[in-house]
Amino acid sequence: MSRVLVTGATGLIGRHAVAELAHRGWEVHIAARRPAAQPFAGSVVTHAVDLLNRAATGDLLRRIRPSHLLHFAWVTEHGYYWRAPENLDWVAATCGLVRDFAAVGGRRIVSAGTCAEYDWTDPTLATGLCHEIMTPIRPHTLYGATKDACRRILAAFADEAGLEFAWGRVFLLFGEGEDRRRLIPSIIQGLRAEQAVPCSPGTQVRDFMAAADMGAAFAALTASSVAGAVNIASGVPVTVAEAALTVGRLMGRPDLIHLGALPMRSDDPPHLVADVRRLRDEVGFPLPAQMEDRLRAMIEAELVAA
Amino acid sequence: MSRVLVTGATGLIGRHAVAELAHRGWEVHIAARRPAAQPFAGSVVTHAVDLLNRAATGDLLRRIRPSHLLHFAWVTEHGYYWRAPENLDWVAATCGLVRDFAAVGGRRIVSAGTCAEYDWTDPTLATGLCHEIMTPIRPHTLYGATKDACRRILAAFADEAGLEFAWGRVFLLFGEGEDRRRLIPSIIQGLRAEQAVPCSPGTQVRDFMAAADMGAAFAALTASSVAGAVNIASGVPVTVAEAALTVGRLMGRPDLIHLGALPMRSDDPPHLVADVRRLRDEVGFPLPAQMEDRLRAMIEAELVAA
Repeated sequence: MSRVLVTGATGLIGRHAVAELAHRGWEVHIAARRPAAQPFAGSVVTHAVDLLNRAATGDLLRRIRPSHLLHFAWVTEHGYYWRAPENLDWVAATCGLVRDFAAVGGRRIVSAGTCAEYDWTDPTLATGLCHEIMTPIRPHTLYGATKDACRRILAAFADEAGLEFAWGRVFLLFGEGEDRRRLIPSIIQGLRAEQAVPCSPGTQVRDFMAAADMGAAFAALTASSVAGAVNIASGVPVTVAEAALTVGRLMGRPDLIHLGALPMRSDDPPHLVADVRRLRDEVGFPLPAQMEDRLRAMIEAELVAA
Repeated sequence: MSRVLVTGATGLIGRHAVAELAHRGWEVHIAARRPAAQPFAGSVVTHAVDLLNRAATGDLLRRIRPSHLLHFAWVTEHGYYWRAPENLDWVAATCGLVRDFAAVGGRRIVSAGTCAEYDWTDPTLATGLCHEIMTPIRPHTLYGATKDACRRILAAFADEAGLEFAWGRVFLLFGEGEDRRRLIPSIIQGLRAEQAVPCSPGTQVRDFMAAADMGAAFAALTASSVAGAVNIASGVPVTVAEAALTVGRLMGRPDLIHLGALPMRSDDPPHLVADVRRLRDEVGFPLPAQMEDRLRAMIEAELVAA
């Protein structure tokens, strides 16, 4: 039987990955500083540990002796994480975590990367897709740089230690529990209050994927033997304007979405969409649910929570 | 006045960098697990600290509050370091070190990289020079990969934190105190015992530089405001055969150097020589002493030590 330790397991993606792995019958252990908002179904054991404490993390690994490690934990605070010095703490914690995982006989590491590893200024991206191998890697932020560096370290370490290693590059997620300052929740809140929602022109093309689908994709990647970088994304190009108007329509007030009321951000790339052939064909992950269905479920959940 | 913390200060290169910085009138603090074999001249303060202990290292930085950090400490045990899992510990320690350095008002970081960051299989290197920007970066070892990743992290962090950052890529060093299993000391020992010294054909072209010159070059780089990667090397192509025969001639027994008695290592690149224009023109570091003079001094020191 496969035994997995999941870090960042109470986060937006992690919670869904845990649920899916438990659903598949895995023995799931989660390392968390705080308990999950809702208890998980299935065989899920929660361990209270601060992953920035190397000694405590090592003790936990020696107790669990997992065969798989699914590592999400990182600094993720909205807006802050792009430039946070804590990115370096998570590089350090990750180095310790994988060393201790290897030392207790672990076999496969799957960790979360980001589309911010790619060179967003590369001319092929103006209309083309981000490809795991062919698109140049050139992060423009501290977050992207530390994630990229982490991937390089883990790949070389896994190679040396005889471990399997895969790296899921996350694109634009949305879902229940998201920070309320982010695009979709802020629109839902505005419309719920029957207020006008000022937006940029929204011409940026993005690759949206619901956190639930991302979690399931990471679970599938963990259960596979696929190695290296894999985009975790829908592959479906959607403009920010379309996404905003879909929320408006689902909530019956598209008239309150004021596209163009805000300027475009100068550092916003015009087109950021993933090539998902590795995820679909090699991992075998099916196309995710329609964005509209996922948005509808999210709106219902947000309205209930409000 | 400039106040520098030097890590790895009792190492092969570090000891010479410390001496040069003290000679230049800097206030030099060194962090070391063990005391230096010979006390340093000038204003050099030794602090006993384990740099793998983040809390202790942070305390030290808060006491010293250095303006400059010159970071050499890493796993360096001969033969072992290429594949050592401890490479990850030094990535982690470096992340903590630079965060704490920035937090106490540090201004400039200089750290040691390696020629093993370059792609040794790149066809331009068959006859050309390793250039800091133009030669592809593609480490083939865990040591090279972790050093490369460390550079990426430090560059992005320095950029975000408003620090200066330079990275000295070390080529092939030799000098007093070297591990006795390495090329030059093993030849000196063999000839001293009047034994035949079996060597490979020695056709590999290398960039040798004495540790004393490397230390002085790092001191010059620390005192400069040059940013980014800088090769720390002589720029002079010398075959391993020439180096071995020079030692033989200086010790009066070139006949004992048996070139071709050992096979070439299959992973040994044929040509690895640095472009040193950045070091010479931007840092302003003069051409180092002749290799023969440095070898003569090393032989004398080794014979005295023996």
